[in-house]
Amino acid sequence: MAPQYKFTYFDFRALGEFIRFLFKYGDIDFEDNRLDPNEWPKLKPSYPNGKLPLLEFDGKTLNQSTAIGRFIAKKIGLAGSNDWEAAQIDATVENLNDLRMAFAKVIWEVDDASKPEEKEKFLKETVPLFLPRLEAQVKTNGGYFVGGKLSWADIYLAAYHETFNHFFKDMFSPYPALQGVIDKVHAIPSIKAYVSKRPKTDI
Amino acid sequence: MAPQYKFTYFDFRALGEFIRFLFKYGDIDFEDNRLDPNEWPKLKPSYPNGKLPLLEFDGKTLNQSTAIGRFIAKKIGLAGSNDWEAAQIDATVENLNDLRMAFAKVIWEVDDASKPEEKEKFLKETVPLFLPRLEAQVKTNGGYFVGGKLSWADIYLAAYHETFNHFFKDMFSPYPALQGVIDKVHAIPSIKAYVSKRPKTDI
Repeated sequence: MAPQYKFTYFDFRALGEFIRFLFKYGDIDFEDNRLDPNEWPKLKPSYPNGKLPLLEFDGKTLNQSTAIGRFIAKKIGLAGSNDWEAAQIDATVENLNDLRMAFAKVIWEVDDASKPEEKEKFLKETVPLFLPRLEAQVKTNGGYFVGGKLSWADIYLAAYHETFNHFFKDMFSPYPALQGVIDKVHAIPSIKAYVSKRPKTDI
Repeated sequence: MAPQYKFTYFDFRALGEFIRFLFKYGDIDFEDNRLDPNEWPKLKPSYPNGKLPLLEFDGKTLNQSTAIGRFIAKKIGLAGSNDWEAAQIDATVENLNDLRMAFAKVIWEVDDASKPEEKEKFLKETVPLFLPRLEAQVKTNGGYFVGGKLSWADIYLAAYHETFNHFFKDMFSPYPALQGVIDKVHAIPSIKAYVSKRPKTDI
């Protein structure tokens, strides 16, 4: 039987990987549709707002990574036990997402001349604005971001940290609680098995 | 009795206004804590990631506008009737939010020399990428973004369109379905009453 879900993203980990982790964690069969970035300019106009990722099922489509992630997370019990937990998880994902966008700007948008300076600023100013607070959050929540248990915020960090680390190798070293979250997620058998077999990509 | 909720944002409509609309729509009493932007540099370090808005209640805090909005929307029945509706609402808010961020970049970040060119590009390229799709979504969903009924995505648009329009007066004119959403939200008595009495601000 064909999988119920078709998930389309580039052949990158980047912003799609946490959704693949969620499918794997929940043992949900999905078509992992990976587009060649070189083909993208031709395909872009046919996608909502010209962006990926995209989820398709039952003839319906859903765009936006966080909307897709939350939808899958609810199905597999990783979106909090009540509205307050759900809200804290949402805020954590958005805080991580803000850090990701600041990172993406430095890596992909800044012109080459100002790049070393902008990278330095990201490490010296932006990272210290976000990570100490997230580190403290994990320390006061039993080793996870919210409620002392795994949520899709933990999975978001564990998947995206690989892209952060590809450019900034020691970004998480001063933050043992965050590194702990990353390690715990990567030790989950279904995720570990997927990571060992997934397509090899730089980012 | 003091209100249970304290909502802190600048003395602007901007990104805080849809949350104020949600409180008003739901008849939820809240402290509308409006900070003077001139005081902000001094206050910034004490806020999560140095950003607003922030919600406080029961000694707890929640940051990130979408996390706050979704949390309040759930309490007042504006977050969808099932997980699929909730996900479509989430995606719509994120699509509007992407448009808002592209807008904010042109209005507040671009240097003065490239501003006219960037503003033109926003109107000629970015707006046509987003609004026709959102217009079609409303047309096929009974005059609202999702499920033929009011949701927090409609309220997000109705509140933020005032900031879009402050800079681009006719931005929504070619989109009657979107203008219809805006008009319907502004005709809701609790929101209409608030809008007539709220502090006057430029944005």
